[in-house]
Amino acid sequence: MNFFEPIDGELACEGVRLTEIAQAVGTPVYVYSSATLERHYTVLTDALVGQGLKGRDGAAPLIAFAVKANSNLAVLKTLARLGAGADTVSEGEIRRALAAGIPAERIVFSGVGKTAQEIEFALKAGVSEINVESEPEMHLISTIAQRLGLRAPIALRVNPDVSAGGHAKIATGKSDNKFGVSISEAERLYAQASNNAGLNPVGVTCHIGSQITDLAPLEAAFAKMARLVARLRADGLSVERLDLGGGLGVPYFDQPEPATPADYAAMIARTLGDLDIALSFEPGRMIAANAGVLLAKVLHIHERPEGRKFVVLDAAMNDLIRPAMYDAYHDLRPVRPRPGPADTYDVVGPVCETGDTFTRDRRLPSLEAGDLVAFMSAGAYGAVMASEYNSRLLVPEVLVRGDQFAIVRPRPTYEDMLAREVVPDWV
Amino acid sequence: MNFFEPIDGELACEGVRLTEIAQAVGTPVYVYSSATLERHYTVLTDALVGQGLKGRDGAAPLIAFAVKANSNLAVLKTLARLGAGADTVSEGEIRRALAAGIPAERIVFSGVGKTAQEIEFALKAGVSEINVESEPEMHLISTIAQRLGLRAPIALRVNPDVSAGGHAKIATGKSDNKFGVSISEAERLYAQASNNAGLNPVGVTCHIGSQITDLAPLEAAFAKMARLVARLRADGLSVERLDLGGGLGVPYFDQPEPATPADYAAMIARTLGDLDIALSFEPGRMIAANAGVLLAKVLHIHERPEGRKFVVLDAAMNDLIRPAMYDAYHDLRPVRPRPGPADTYDVVGPVCETGDTFTRDRRLPSLEAGDLVAFMSAGAYGAVMASEYNSRLLVPEVLVRGDQFAIVRPRPTYEDMLAREVVPDWV
Repeated sequence: MNFFEPIDGELACEGVRLTEIAQAVGTPVYVYSSATLERHYTVLTDALVGQGLKGRDGAAPLIAFAVKANSNLAVLKTLARLGAGADTVSEGEIRRALAAGIPAERIVFSGVGKTAQEIEFALKAGVSEINVESEPEMHLISTIAQRLGLRAPIALRVNPDVSAGGHAKIATGKSDNKFGVSISEAERLYAQASNNAGLNPVGVTCHIGSQITDLAPLEAAFAKMARLVARLRADGLSVERLDLGGGLGVPYFDQPEPATPADYAAMIARTLGDLDIALSFEPGRMIAANAGVLLAKVLHIHERPEGRKFVVLDAAMNDLIRPAMYDAYHDLRPVRPRPGPADTYDVVGPVCETGDTFTRDRRLPSLEAGDLVAFMSAGAYGAVMASEYNSRLLVPEVLVRGDQFAIVRPRPTYEDMLAREVVPDWV
Repeated sequence: MNFFEPIDGELACEGVRLTEIAQAVGTPVYVYSSATLERHYTVLTDALVGQGLKGRDGAAPLIAFAVKANSNLAVLKTLARLGAGADTVSEGEIRRALAAGIPAERIVFSGVGKTAQEIEFALKAGVSEINVESEPEMHLISTIAQRLGLRAPIALRVNPDVSAGGHAKIATGKSDNKFGVSISEAERLYAQASNNAGLNPVGVTCHIGSQITDLAPLEAAFAKMARLVARLRADGLSVERLDLGGGLGVPYFDQPEPATPADYAAMIARTLGDLDIALSFEPGRMIAANAGVLLAKVLHIHERPEGRKFVVLDAAMNDLIRPAMYDAYHDLRPVRPRPGPADTYDVVGPVCETGDTFTRDRRLPSLEAGDLVAFMSAGAYGAVMASEYNSRLLVPEVLVRGDQFAIVRPRPTYEDMLAREVVPDWV
């Protein structure tokens, strides 16, 4: 559920009409709903707590929001105020989480390619745990921690070799992809870490992908993790935490209805409820996707005599790359629906490649040049992946709360864009 | 041919060792060769002139560099000094071309989604021509031009409905994609433009795609354009210019050897030589691709007990998206090759999705953590498509000339990145 509904027949975000935002900020622009972010966070937390699931020190499980899904500081702060932690994958993301007021003890540092500088930064910041993705990385963390006179809290990211369905580019839990150590190595590496002066292994973690709509692969992975925890403990090793990653899908309208947070929590209670371990989660898309839209304007409708009709928007693949990159589906709604027959369109952007096509042969309500349209479910993996390709200005972001809104990342000026470059005098 | 060759066994760009650049700027970083840019521009110009082909006023054909391929100001200025024009697709690109010293009379403004603001900017700047992509856009240009008291120089972009091979995302010459007006409409629209007080139709243009390695589809398209020009002239219409677009491929090592500029020029002379028309071209990749590399560092080698070996780099899909986006192949070379056996690797970046895989099962020379590697042929559609996904800092760019180099776009700081965002006091 989200808070993008019509007011007097005109699409709004909470109490603010999207037309008002387009007039004030121009298009394209991302618009996020505070109430939707808060609701998704709360629904998940309540579902987990309702099943009696626990985090550290008997508190609720840690919900570490996956910053890669939406890293805007105002979005992060909205979640921080509810008690969210942060799942981060770079120094930049750790800095964002800290800047948004998320305490270091709620920040997890993941990622297959942490640099030495990033590891040092994370250790000095005092993050809650570093999720170790490979044996050489574990040694690097140990070396840096010992040099700093620290013992690094680590969790071992285990690749459970489970196929999660969904798009191959975002499935992460098979042993032929780059994430985590193989489950066959986990005991050896965990024992090794326990005997290492620079490391304090606090638990294990897995993450099998994103946009998973079926609980079965998640349950299979979690059951494997439960057996691993039991084996580690039988070896006399301490395993305090189990991080179950993210991955629960969201409804994008053309896909199977995803499992609900309640179903998800019940499955976890059934699979892991008696493990006596501090659970944590790394949801991203599930919290942010349906909390945002990309607002764009129809530049014109181009009809070919051969029959194909193109809706040309002022938004492009550089603003929202998911359709071009992952063949992703986004529902597209006119902000002020007009009378007239529906028609079948290709919806394209201005970027000079055919890949800049948001959708083909889509049945859409009547549209004319100048109309505003909203790409729904664009709050995750939208603005964070935006670029300036074709020298288009970086797309701005707006946050709504009730009947007020604020520009939380302004559109840069052309002067800003050009000022980043330096022409040497010998050119 | 390019100027990335070893010096004393160590890969260099012209006279500068890549190791020296990595030490000074860090990795990842794009490195461009001035001599290669200049050579590619000159080879193409010489080939066209050598066939007696002409541009406006009997001069050499206009080579309008496709700014979308590489928009760095120092790169543009390097080409501007040789007399290059610019093919632009946005206000940002027009501003870049002007800032690099390319005169407006050598700037062409193309693109399927020009906004009213951009059209006004282009007309006021006095660009050489606006390439019209659809009938509604033609009317918009006319309206704006008349309001400004101008007659807009336009060329009609015709979609010749030719299949160019190559990746579907970059093939642009079929009638089921968004580019240009259908050839069946061209005469009607050109005649309409000739009678419009706001328009001055100067010619026709086509562009059937990028990375075309076979001349046959180009020849088929150009022959269609020649017949169109003849029909328009037979209708009594003035057609002074013919813009043949870009598209000639470059060697990426795993593809058919592309046609040479000499073959290309000879084909054009054969197909269009007796048309008595001012020719222009919009090459991008052909000039810039092999003039740049992306330099990266090996963070570690992760071997799975199941057998797969991962080279984890500090460069990621946000820095170079072509492999993830287009399944593109880039040759990968160690900067200082070390003794030891070759092996088969997956080469991946730190970004948290499986799509962040540069190549799978690639046979590579011996590599160890800390080694520098270069993605070859990364000078086009590399830095221009870069993003900050995963809150990674925007990749910097370096230009080399002879034995000197300069940072032409510095790596931003984390403070720069965070300073772009605003958290309202009500969050």
